[in-house]
Amino acid sequence: MSVHRVHLTQGLAGEGEHVAITGDEAQHAVRVKRLAAGDPIELLDGRGRIATATIAGAEKLGKKSGWSLTARIDAVRIEPRPAPAVHVRTAPPKGPRLEHMIDQLAQSGAASWGPLITKRTVVDPREGKLARLERVAAEASKQCGRAWSLTIEPGIGFSEAFASASTTVLADASGTTLGDANSTDPRNDHVTLLIGPEGGWDPRELAAARDAGVRIARFGPHVMRVETAAVVAAAALLAAHAPVTPTPSA
Amino acid sequence: MSVHRVHLTQGLAGEGEHVAITGDEAQHAVRVKRLAAGDPIELLDGRGRIATATIAGAEKLGKKSGWSLTARIDAVRIEPRPAPAVHVRTAPPKGPRLEHMIDQLAQSGAASWGPLITKRTVVDPREGKLARLERVAAEASKQCGRAWSLTIEPGIGFSEAFASASTTVLADASGTTLGDANSTDPRNDHVTLLIGPEGGWDPRELAAARDAGVRIARFGPHVMRVETAAVVAAAALLAAHAPVTPTPSA
Repeated sequence: MSVHRVHLTQGLAGEGEHVAITGDEAQHAVRVKRLAAGDPIELLDGRGRIATATIAGAEKLGKKSGWSLTARIDAVRIEPRPAPAVHVRTAPPKGPRLEHMIDQLAQSGAASWGPLITKRTVVDPREGKLARLERVAAEASKQCGRAWSLTIEPGIGFSEAFASASTTVLADASGTTLGDANSTDPRNDHVTLLIGPEGGWDPRELAAARDAGVRIARFGPHVMRVETAAVVAAAALLAAHAPVTPTPSA
Repeated sequence: MSVHRVHLTQGLAGEGEHVAITGDEAQHAVRVKRLAAGDPIELLDGRGRIATATIAGAEKLGKKSGWSLTARIDAVRIEPRPAPAVHVRTAPPKGPRLEHMIDQLAQSGAASWGPLITKRTVVDPREGKLARLERVAAEASKQCGRAWSLTIEPGIGFSEAFASASTTVLADASGTTLGDANSTDPRNDHVTLLIGPEGGWDPRELAAARDAGVRIARFGPHVMRVETAAVVAAAALLAAHAPVTPTPSA
């Protein structure tokens, strides 16, 4: 039985200090998980800090405000960011497919997602939508035990996407496979991954990316929808540059 | 504008011969795509054969039977199977997640999927369900232009899963990353990939797999749900063993 986890958006205090858990997280912990004083709980700030804590008390605040839990922090550990940090930029797929993609990207280990506005992009999510995606990302990150939550970034245009200092990889069927000798530079801790819209890249965009020295890679033998391509390519980049783990002794 | 594609379950005839398209495919081609005599069409048998054809005529069979299209085959080409053939075996996720997984596996390039019955498996799909999954696989395979459809295999028990001659890879957090020196044998054209149920593998299953020399690999830094793990791991295996493609001359 694993310890119940709570995501604290306001951040974590130090050892021996008390923190308050309110809102949906408190409601769920008290009413669904039936947690009470003395029960262990794990707190994540989504920025690498994980605390083991003990519930000190639960208080009903009123009909509308719900519950407030107080937890005493027993120990705090800091986990390093997974390397490399893969920053995914896609033309946003429509409707529920966007939230599903955020959920899968959180599981895959990508560092961030943000909208990429291309010539053929149909949807440009508003700020309200991005705020909702942040909640989806936080929940998915908690579910899969991420110490660092997937972050949601504001939208950028295509030409801005490869102006950053990070290695940029653009997914397109015309590219080479990752196993190729001209692979991405594994010394770079940040990789930006660009996934095009349903109709594919505009030829001028592809040409501009090639001129800028962007690595063009293909991630599978078939055409993938945006959300599948994003998770497959993010996982492939993480796997290609992941530190080799030793075989655990049985 | 790409040519409309139709999946022919009854197989393909040779050059110059005529084939009949009936059922939903005919209905869709006539009523939605507005195809008529003289229009080009692409026919796939899901077993590597792709025909370019021309519609010779369309006939309404009656209220209940819908439409019948006749197409003349202009040319037939045969595409090789993607290598390696990755055979995915998972504990079946519940409800719509199973169909969504089949759809994504088809996009990733996996060769087949079948249920894996483990000690902790909850769902064991019936034959009717597997028949429905075959239709999902055929439709997804057509959508992403696969010459070889993803096939649906009958369920097998855990111990049968690594009795076959193919290289077997079992996904578990205790494993090593694919980049490791003890990688899967790239000379083997068939790889069987085993993904465990939500609760993880039973310790006896893991021990039995180790004893049998099964490669145990991890595919990401976090816990993934069954359907995400399946598509990420299948894509990683395909990428790790894909033939290196030359950079296309611009």
